[in-house]
Amino acid sequence: MAKKSAFVVVNFMTDGEKDFNTMVVTPWEVKGEIDYKKLVKKFGTTFLSTKEITQIKEYSGGELHLLLRRGLFFSHRDFDWILQMLKKGEKFVLYTGRGPSGHTHLGHLVPWIFTKWLQDIFNVDLYFQLTDDEKFLFNQKFTFQESQNFAYENAKDILAVGFNPEKTHFIFDSQLTKTMYQIAVEVAKRVTFSTAKAVFGFVNESNIGMIFYPSIQAMPCFLPSVLQGKNVPVLIPAAIDQDPYWRITRDVAPKLGYYKPAAIHCKFFPGLAEGGKMSASEPDSCIFTTDDPNKAKKKIMRAFTGGRATIEEQKKLGGQPEICNIYWYEYYLFEPDDKKIEKMRSDCLAGKLLCGTCKKRLGEKVKQFLADHQSRREKITKEMIDEKIIKT
Amino acid sequence: MAKKSAFVVVNFMTDGEKDFNTMVVTPWEVKGEIDYKKLVKKFGTTFLSTKEITQIKEYSGGELHLLLRRGLFFSHRDFDWILQMLKKGEKFVLYTGRGPSGHTHLGHLVPWIFTKWLQDIFNVDLYFQLTDDEKFLFNQKFTFQESQNFAYENAKDILAVGFNPEKTHFIFDSQLTKTMYQIAVEVAKRVTFSTAKAVFGFVNESNIGMIFYPSIQAMPCFLPSVLQGKNVPVLIPAAIDQDPYWRITRDVAPKLGYYKPAAIHCKFFPGLAEGGKMSASEPDSCIFTTDDPNKAKKKIMRAFTGGRATIEEQKKLGGQPEICNIYWYEYYLFEPDDKKIEKMRSDCLAGKLLCGTCKKRLGEKVKQFLADHQSRREKITKEMIDEKIIKT
Repeated sequence: MAKKSAFVVVNFMTDGEKDFNTMVVTPWEVKGEIDYKKLVKKFGTTFLSTKEITQIKEYSGGELHLLLRRGLFFSHRDFDWILQMLKKGEKFVLYTGRGPSGHTHLGHLVPWIFTKWLQDIFNVDLYFQLTDDEKFLFNQKFTFQESQNFAYENAKDILAVGFNPEKTHFIFDSQLTKTMYQIAVEVAKRVTFSTAKAVFGFVNESNIGMIFYPSIQAMPCFLPSVLQGKNVPVLIPAAIDQDPYWRITRDVAPKLGYYKPAAIHCKFFPGLAEGGKMSASEPDSCIFTTDDPNKAKKKIMRAFTGGRATIEEQKKLGGQPEICNIYWYEYYLFEPDDKKIEKMRSDCLAGKLLCGTCKKRLGEKVKQFLADHQSRREKITKEMIDEKIIKT
Repeated sequence: MAKKSAFVVVNFMTDGEKDFNTMVVTPWEVKGEIDYKKLVKKFGTTFLSTKEITQIKEYSGGELHLLLRRGLFFSHRDFDWILQMLKKGEKFVLYTGRGPSGHTHLGHLVPWIFTKWLQDIFNVDLYFQLTDDEKFLFNQKFTFQESQNFAYENAKDILAVGFNPEKTHFIFDSQLTKTMYQIAVEVAKRVTFSTAKAVFGFVNESNIGMIFYPSIQAMPCFLPSVLQGKNVPVLIPAAIDQDPYWRITRDVAPKLGYYKPAAIHCKFFPGLAEGGKMSASEPDSCIFTTDDPNKAKKKIMRAFTGGRATIEEQKKLGGQPEICNIYWYEYYLFEPDDKKIEKMRSDCLAGKLLCGTCKKRLGEKVKQFLADHQSRREKITKEMIDEKIIKT
């Protein structure tokens, strides 16, 4: 059941249902079984179509990233417009962000990996926001210092993903500049409490920083235009739960003379436990980038699968890949070969594949993935991060 | 009658009354006949007593500023504590501010003149905040650029008052620094919407910048402590309508480990029209520092006085100094000699003094005052202001 707190957002919930599976999708909470069709309809976004996907191929040499090809990125706002503008010679910039509430996990990396791919094929600038003010304001027990420390920890992971170092810029909210504050104040003037309340569910107990905060998350949509002195199209790759921010920002944009930001949305990456997205608040369901690779493998070995109660049953009835986290990890991240993934699925359905085998295989892949990520991560220094932080 | 707008504050209003004389005192509106006794009671501040005033004399060589001696500064919060701390060796700093909604007028200069006197006798630092974000957020028709331009115009007047250039620091809100933002966010986390609504009267139509703004006005109370790396007592000389901000700030201070800011409050300086404070929204009732001195004298010649309808009546009944703006200007600002001011009053009451004489005399004084101020003001350059703006 949706927890009622000072900042629970009720902008999406299946009407009337109160059981565990009630879908709750807000920038701070994702719960229950997600019906993405319903979500796209309620949020008013558009499913990615063959038309846009075909156009991307022109820039990527015919290739499509696994996360796009297999549909983790599935919805958008004005992505077609971004491509039209590009054809006309108006290059876009990418903007995404991270709320530094703890260490980075695999689920966080997913949109970043895709964002890196977009940066590479389009050769564009990326503005990456670390919302350490948000995480401090929205979490009673968090100190601002803790939030700022995690911002640096997360930034190490961001750079370890391999973004183009020449074209990647950090916005650290706690290191806000006068330019950023001025943009945020321009946005804030155009958003009434009434609107913010309707979109984010603010209540009397919400603190006044939380209420202002949407202006800070909107700000990077306009910062590139201010810094470049001309209107710059912005594309935001992010999970769909962040969409309420872009809805507000898109309403304000024309009033300030800026383009509306465009977005490309992904679904939630599953955790290791049954149902739900990977969430740091349930550490055992999470593969953190700071986990010892062997420990991570052990977490995989304990993951929820689509397997049956006994080996006999599994052989007789077959497994259930559609509810199996191991399968989805392979599908979205670790097995790019379409034939192999299809064989994995059909063998499972036919009862020819047992969960132990799958877990072991994925465990090894994750272990290697983490070892590689960590070897890049440990080379990232505070100075390398600091030099990418926008200071004007 | 109190105008009902998106941000009218109802924290002080005489109950039930709806006529023109209803007292309204908020950070954005002062209206009606002001009953300072009621105000002190409702706001929960304390009248300045002989005890504090006597102690000030120890620092001022026995002298008292006219504005204190004649009671324009009349109320306080913890001013006695400021003096105790000083005795113990903990020096305070001064903090005051200006909302740059237009050019400076005489009414604005009044607390600054007194603040300069405090700076001189105690030899302390002054932090002067220009709230150009506030004026932009609270005024629908104002652009941020206009507000920022007026901030510089007002800063010229501030420096022309003659503050110690070595010990005066500007906080330009539109040039917010990361240190300032971090303090504001720490404050914001401790103020619920419920509290802000109760104190400032925010409504659904209030924009989300207005709601956050109290954190920005609270910030300079803690900035000196952050900059100096130790707890610093802060004394705020300002008109009493700003007190709601300090009430909120004082509630938050102990939660952040800072001293509560102390305040010393002044009454409202009268305009040239009948009743009300000097207000830029009624330009003819105002002496602006940018007015041509001769034009200013003409405004004085048209001022509302306590005079009677005819000279004959005046001679017979005597004038009414207690409702005469000309008298109050002399009393608070232009006639320091107690004997002379008393003679002015008694002659007026006795019908021996006519309004034309008084207006002419004050007109000359104001003309000279403006000429002097303007000759200092025109020497102030943007560079002189910029070098005093806090940038860390």
